[in-house]
Amino acid sequence: MYQLAEKLFPICRSITGDGVRKTLQILQQECPELKIYEVESGTKVFDWEVPDEWNIDDAYIENSKGERIVDFKKSNLHVMGYSMPMDRYVGLEELKSIVYTQKDQPDVIPYVTSYYCRRSGFCMSENQLASLPEDRYHCVIKSELKKGSLTYGEIILNGETDKEVLLSTYICHPSMANNEVSGPCVAIELAKWLKSLQPARYTYRIVFLPETIGSITYLSRNIDIMKKNTVAGFLLSCVGDERTYSIVESRYGNTLADRLLQNVLHYHYPDYKRYSFLERGSDERQYNFPGVDLPVCAVCRSKYGEYPEYHTSKDDLNLISEEGMRGTVELMKKCIHALEHNGYYRVKCLCEPQYGRRGLYPTVSQKGSYDSVRALTNFVAYADGTNDMIDISNRIEVPVEELILIAEKLLQNNLIERIDRV
Amino acid sequence: MYQLAEKLFPICRSITGDGVRKTLQILQQECPELKIYEVESGTKVFDWEVPDEWNIDDAYIENSKGERIVDFKKSNLHVMGYSMPMDRYVGLEELKSIVYTQKDQPDVIPYVTSYYCRRSGFCMSENQLASLPEDRYHCVIKSELKKGSLTYGEIILNGETDKEVLLSTYICHPSMANNEVSGPCVAIELAKWLKSLQPARYTYRIVFLPETIGSITYLSRNIDIMKKNTVAGFLLSCVGDERTYSIVESRYGNTLADRLLQNVLHYHYPDYKRYSFLERGSDERQYNFPGVDLPVCAVCRSKYGEYPEYHTSKDDLNLISEEGMRGTVELMKKCIHALEHNGYYRVKCLCEPQYGRRGLYPTVSQKGSYDSVRALTNFVAYADGTNDMIDISNRIEVPVEELILIAEKLLQNNLIERIDRV
Amino acid sequence: MYQLAEKLFPICRSITGDGVRKTLQILQQECPELKIYEVESGTKVFDWEVPDEWNIDDAYIENSKGERIVDFKKSNLHVMGYSMPMDRYVGLEELKSIVYTQKDQPDVIPYVTSYYCRRSGFCMSENQLASLPEDRYHCVIKSELKKGSLTYGEIILNGETDKEVLLSTYICHPSMANNEVSGPCVAIELAKWLKSLQPARYTYRIVFLPETIGSITYLSRNIDIMKKNTVAGFLLSCVGDERTYSIVESRYGNTLADRLLQNVLHYHYPDYKRYSFLERGSDERQYNFPGVDLPVCAVCRSKYGEYPEYHTSKDDLNLISEEGMRGTVELMKKCIHALEHNGYYRVKCLCEPQYGRRGLYPTVSQKGSYDSVRALTNFVAYADGTNDMIDISNRIEVPVEELILIAEKLLQNNLIERIDRV
Repeated sequence: MYQLAEKLFPICRSITGDGVRKTLQILQQECPELKIYEVESGTKVFDWEVPDEWNIDDAYIENSKGERIVDFKKSNLHVMGYSMPMDRYVGLEELKSIVYTQKDQPDVIPYVTSYYCRRSGFCMSENQLASLPEDRYHCVIKSELKKGSLTYGEIILNGETDKEVLLSTYICHPSMANNEVSGPCVAIELAKWLKSLQPARYTYRIVFLPETIGSITYLSRNIDIMKKNTVAGFLLSCVGDERTYSIVESRYGNTLADRLLQNVLHYHYPDYKRYSFLERGSDERQYNFPGVDLPVCAVCRSKYGEYPEYHTSKDDLNLISEEGMRGTVELMKKCIHALEHNGYYRVKCLCEPQYGRRGLYPTVSQKGSYDSVRALTNFVAYADGTNDMIDISNRIEVPVEELILIAEKLLQNNLIERIDRV
Repeated sequence: MYQLAEKLFPICRSITGDGVRKTLQILQQECPELKIYEVESGTKVFDWEVPDEWNIDDAYIENSKGERIVDFKKSNLHVMGYSMPMDRYVGLEELKSIVYTQKDQPDVIPYVTSYYCRRSGFCMSENQLASLPEDRYHCVIKSELKKGSLTYGEIILNGETDKEVLLSTYICHPSMANNEVSGPCVAIELAKWLKSLQPARYTYRIVFLPETIGSITYLSRNIDIMKKNTVAGFLLSCVGDERTYSIVESRYGNTLADRLLQNVLHYHYPDYKRYSFLERGSDERQYNFPGVDLPVCAVCRSKYGEYPEYHTSKDDLNLISEEGMRGTVELMKKCIHALEHNGYYRVKCLCEPQYGRRGLYPTVSQKGSYDSVRALTNFVAYADGTNDMIDISNRIEVPVEELILIAEKLLQNNLIERIDRV
Repeated sequence: MYQLAEKLFPICRSITGDGVRKTLQILQQECPELKIYEVESGTKVFDWEVPDEWNIDDAYIENSKGERIVDFKKSNLHVMGYSMPMDRYVGLEELKSIVYTQKDQPDVIPYVTSYYCRRSGFCMSENQLASLPEDRYHCVIKSELKKGSLTYGEIILNGETDKEVLLSTYICHPSMANNEVSGPCVAIELAKWLKSLQPARYTYRIVFLPETIGSITYLSRNIDIMKKNTVAGFLLSCVGDERTYSIVESRYGNTLADRLLQNVLHYHYPDYKRYSFLERGSDERQYNFPGVDLPVCAVCRSKYGEYPEYHTSKDDLNLISEEGMRGTVELMKKCIHALEHNGYYRVKCLCEPQYGRRGLYPTVSQKGSYDSVRALTNFVAYADGTNDMIDISNRIEVPVEELILIAEKLLQNNLIERIDRV
């Protein structure tokens, strides 16, 4: 994954343009099931319309000695996203009016955009700006904003049923590591693993979208089937550092996605951080919007907005690691494994079955001899058809992955039945 | 308000009689919409009947030197409420059998009544009683108890709808300041303000009743319309001191009145005191009685029974202030303002609207740039038709008064609709 | 009770056999209403079948000097329950393979059984086993396992209604005091007391069963009527020591039995211990099994499995006392008294009744004068037909036994009515 991240990192992505296309093509090489879609500028998508396409070749500021003091080629963060073309000589004061800095972090280049209001702007560190002398600066942006299209990617892996699980990530930030490339890298790794689960119970819908306008565009085309079929969804964002795990809950924090993720995190990484929907920030905003109502929560390592490097030039490849992304992959595999086996079970006999003659119980009874079978008897005690495996796991304090093994033994012995599939 | 309090304080009120009439006439001068009703003695009101009317001209105890040791003219608390006429010479021992003191507060005159069992009695401080020598005391009460009527006042301010808000206070205690005159003073001030809200959404029913028998009498005549129309009600009691704010919850603590008052207090005076219905004591007892079931809670500054001066001669004009009553008025205005604008809202588009083009959102996106619009986006996120403004305020931690401004902006932009009125 | 315990203690009980019969005959002498039932070996009972009957005359291990190193006559715990006959000479190593000890408590003889897998075994203390020299040991078990029957006892005390209360205890452990004989002693004492309540509202079903197979057998014959009629049930186990009181909750901890027992314990012994259903261990397992769903929780002093003497030779007559068993009897009497009077009450008038003229209220009103009638007025405030007495007791913090007296006064005054019986 880290190699893929290195490949994706330098590309100058935005909500439209060739950076997105190139990113999706690289991902498609990893997973040929990925389909790339283009939606024309001007297309009405709910309350929005798809904007003109933005591309950029180069940008810089030169001082009067012809020295480039900022250079798009060195960091694509130096140009405000969606900047209009520019070629102008300005004095220091005017320069300051078009340069954005992060005053509370004077040594970083901030990531700044102006998608829907036409501007031109540069970004640099506050320290650099403060050190600039009075001079004549040549400000050049070789960009283009014109009718084109918005590009997104989609992988559909069909399962035994139409019921779907959504994985969503975004591909619209330029050189940002945790808050951008970690998402597609983890999503592609999961897609490869899901393909190996032949066939999974659920259909998996894995989407790579420009944030906000991309998810709104995608929903405008797919909302009916998604509302009908989605059982759980996860927005993957900032999933590459090693500091913690985080969940951003769905609107009311009570969907299957929430219950599942909280349960798995509880056993996998009990120190995880839990954020309410009030602290949302990525496309879970759209998935959970009133009337959209998809059961989606966000999964992060360090949550967007909560780590200092967020939306700055410090969110670079040093911030993420193979290990960090691997942790998220393992977490999501546990969630998906639990989800695939989740269901409502009901015991088939009245009173406890005679486990002993089925080899499920010690035949000598002595103080302490039943401790080893507590998980099994507790599972059965709550297998009354009203609890799914997550409920039972929460109640009896046994991870779902262990309950899956127990359920298999009980199914083999014809002691329980699955009465419904969630 | 304080001047009105000074005018009302000296009057000797009881559950019937001229003191009540005089009090209501003074209030009527302040607010001509106040109507005064008389209900004849003997009228059956639910399980009770309206008692005979009590009036008193004078009362005193003289010692053998002709010195008045207690004098009704100096404090009307010296006579037990509803005392029968008396003119008798008694020795010290017999005197003690008809004198009431507050043993745990030896320097106060207690407030004592015997409405439904005919007695004659005096009240004085425990210190005074203890200091009395053996003597021949002349005990005189010039009172009268005979067929007459019970008097109460009512202001109805019609609103856009029949749906009503109840404000209830009492007018049956003699010279008591916090636990009596603060209530009518605040209620009249609110009535004046409500008249200025032309027209309010709700109809306001503001009643001035003798406690218990008065509210039972009033309910016996108005229960049907009140059950049909009342959306929330507030019993104003002890609303004139400056020590704290208190709520006494309704029977189950879950009515709109409770939710509203707790919400407003949370932002207005977070150190407020919360009492369960087990600690009720005034006419919220009747409004919340099983079968009556009106959504009423009590509002106090220092709650009745919880401050040392309660029901003693120390509950005098020093205990209350313009500032203290003003605090309650402001609290109730905030409640009424919230109530008038409360409702269920629903966003009108799928996915987030494009706030930016409506001037509701920053057009430059940088870390931290959305903090200022969080209240607006959070309001919309929960404007799914299942939450009223109080629910949303509680959930997103923004006062209702701020949500009202947000809702107005959103309504102007046709982004939300009100789908129901509570 | 303690004398009865002394009589029962020495008998060698198991899940079948003459020890059970003898035990039930002794109990029948105490309470002639007890009926003894026999169920033939081989009878199918749900997923199980009634096992062959086990009886034992004698057992011992002799060393080569003819000294009995363990002797069934001295402690029936020395023989593993359901041991097959044996008469064999073995060396020390082979002896060790058929001797069970409790390694973490080296000075006790553990209680060990092998009901459903045919074995022969002895039990002794770890200390004794460790001290045995190499020798030739004569191991003799004079037991018999053959077709016969399973024996259980049942007392039915008919009440005014078919609705039943279940008391269940077990009679299958050999010489164990707290975890065996305390249960039948307390149950018989309660049966005697219940007979004196002529007639009780409820029918009382009191059963004396071998654990697990006995309750499964009993349920297989009585489940329909029990499901139809049982309002609450209590499993009596380990009810004879003086250390604490414990409840093991029903499957979801929310039945009338749970609510009642927790309420009574709260006032009777607030330091009681509360165990969830995850820590169940006796026949509450069967009563609460999915589909059986009887409202049963377990009542203990020190809970089985939670005190060091449990399932060892130290659980002897020193561990229990008349006082200890009496405590449980009193607790259960309080529960039954509350249950017999429990119900939903509704006040019959609108607004507070005039308590004063009925002698239920002070006629002089002064600060503090109503404290004594708070329980009554609070009872009435929640007598709205939606709360039973346990709900009201929990809400207003007054024990049910006090509410029963209040309800009687209110019923006499025709102020409330019972609208339903739980």
